[in-house]
Amino acid sequence: MTVPGVATVEAVVEAGGAGTGRVMTRVDQRMVELVSNHGELLARHGSQTITAGGKRLRPLLVCIAAAVPVEESEALVRAAVAVELVHAATLVHDDVIDGADLRRGRPTVVASGGRLLALATGDLLFSRAFAELAAGDKIEPIRVLSAAASALASGELMQRDDAWNSHVGQERYLDRCRLKTGVLFRASCELGALAGGAPSDALGRFGEGIGVAFQLLDDILDVTGPAERTGKPRGTDLLDGTVTLPLIEARKRDPELASLDLRSVETADQAAAVCDQIEASGALDFARDHALAVVAGAKAGLPEWLPETQRNALELVADGVVERYS
Amino acid sequence: MTVPGVATVEAVVEAGGAGTGRVMTRVDQRMVELVSNHGELLARHGSQTITAGGKRLRPLLVCIAAAVPVEESEALVRAAVAVELVHAATLVHDDVIDGADLRRGRPTVVASGGRLLALATGDLLFSRAFAELAAGDKIEPIRVLSAAASALASGELMQRDDAWNSHVGQERYLDRCRLKTGVLFRASCELGALAGGAPSDALGRFGEGIGVAFQLLDDILDVTGPAERTGKPRGTDLLDGTVTLPLIEARKRDPELASLDLRSVETADQAAAVCDQIEASGALDFARDHALAVVAGAKAGLPEWLPETQRNALELVADGVVERYS
Repeated sequence: MTVPGVATVEAVVEAGGAGTGRVMTRVDQRMVELVSNHGELLARHGSQTITAGGKRLRPLLVCIAAAVPVEESEALVRAAVAVELVHAATLVHDDVIDGADLRRGRPTVVASGGRLLALATGDLLFSRAFAELAAGDKIEPIRVLSAAASALASGELMQRDDAWNSHVGQERYLDRCRLKTGVLFRASCELGALAGGAPSDALGRFGEGIGVAFQLLDDILDVTGPAERTGKPRGTDLLDGTVTLPLIEARKRDPELASLDLRSVETADQAAAVCDQIEASGALDFARDHALAVVAGAKAGLPEWLPETQRNALELVADGVVERYS
Repeated sequence: MTVPGVATVEAVVEAGGAGTGRVMTRVDQRMVELVSNHGELLARHGSQTITAGGKRLRPLLVCIAAAVPVEESEALVRAAVAVELVHAATLVHDDVIDGADLRRGRPTVVASGGRLLALATGDLLFSRAFAELAAGDKIEPIRVLSAAASALASGELMQRDDAWNSHVGQERYLDRCRLKTGVLFRASCELGALAGGAPSDALGRFGEGIGVAFQLLDDILDVTGPAERTGKPRGTDLLDGTVTLPLIEARKRDPELASLDLRSVETADQAAAVCDQIEASGALDFARDHALAVVAGAKAGLPEWLPETQRNALELVADGVVERYS
């Protein structure tokens, strides 16, 4: 999965004000601490995916949603660390399912340590996320994160349920994007707003939109490639039986794709050929336009009362998500 | 894994007073509700291991530790459900690792739905456990449960780290038992005591002792069998490279076992032969005596101020754990 470039993240950190950079540094330090404080085994295998790489997009949203004045807040650092831990836990578990060897150019936990280790590592990261929040004295952040974590798992179950099912439509697909990715982005914004002392549903909605667009663009990249950029061959979703918007839309436009039996796509070459056909149908432009519209809607929905600095930083994150695609 | 018989659980429920039975019924109802409220897929596969079977030993400890007067407490039901959800999550994930087909005589989630489904189901149960506690207004129970869940995962990591390592000694083994099983029993007692309004470290220590003994006896049963009783062939731990007290002690007594290369035990027949040799060394009696001493210590450590009813019920649970072995 590609993420916004370092340049974008740096721009956001700068736009967020001096406090953002300091909080993000503490988040990084805390992640390293957590991984090294749970035994040699976690330190050896966990550090690969957890402390290395990743642009910390969700912690960044937590910081920005909180606005700068709470820069010294322990609660803010804890919230940012907690969402990143949940995210890291899902990555480690995802790699178990996919049997993936590399993530962010480094060996995955499952590749270097095996399934048992990867499963326990994911469970540990998950538990630590809640322990992190429970070290504070507020119950509301835990409600937000446990609901988001439940939604994430429900999204995975939904994806499993919908696998190879060519009748999955746009609405159900978008609902899955919301569960799989949107809710944790939403939770990031909500947790930040809570830590900043100003709970905000509007910021939560912004986060959800950005997350849905992020997932949509990721699904488009799976069709377009190139592999050097995404780190996986084109058409991985097709081979997994995961039906995404590009395919849903392309089937409306191309009768040959409409009658395609998804299970007949078995090789990388066949998958690449179907990707070409999806692209030729114009479905990718449709899907990308949808993602851009979601991002535009998220930006337009930002509340008027937001301080300029905060608005600029949030808009930069939104633009960064879109830039992944271009 | 065998559990105390229905007769024992019924005796405990009776000893715990009328309220215990009512709370346990609500715990069961809530578990069924949770599994059926998260989509058709979870309901179909999850109900197998989650709502069916299991003697609800941990929820029972929560109830008894709380003492009867809080029978109508929502917080008590939530705490009992939360520990059982964490336990269920670890079972579902354990079955992914072991590729187990049956649990409690029914198909496992991984057997009926595959790895992705089982992994997501475990993650969902895990998240719901914290959501369940977060529905209350107290932070302390979440601290207790997240610490226990972290310890569980650390115990799994430790077991992975120690696999095939013949230098693992008794102390390290017992520490692993504490992490893998003791802490969730401890958390059950602590959560119950919290819900009852009387936080108690003494009850927590009792729970930990019972849990460690439970694990020890489980490890002995792996050596003694019979398979019809434990639901798995004798010597499964040996084949997994899991070094337990019976083997650790037997190696001190039998030079042939001391020089055995654990990786050379590859077939069920070889494992059964090593089990016979462990038994012949007298190590099982040693391990069982240790477990009984731990249980006796746990009972002796129960605080003097405990009401008679509560003490009786806790002692019945302790005896039930021992009876599994006989």
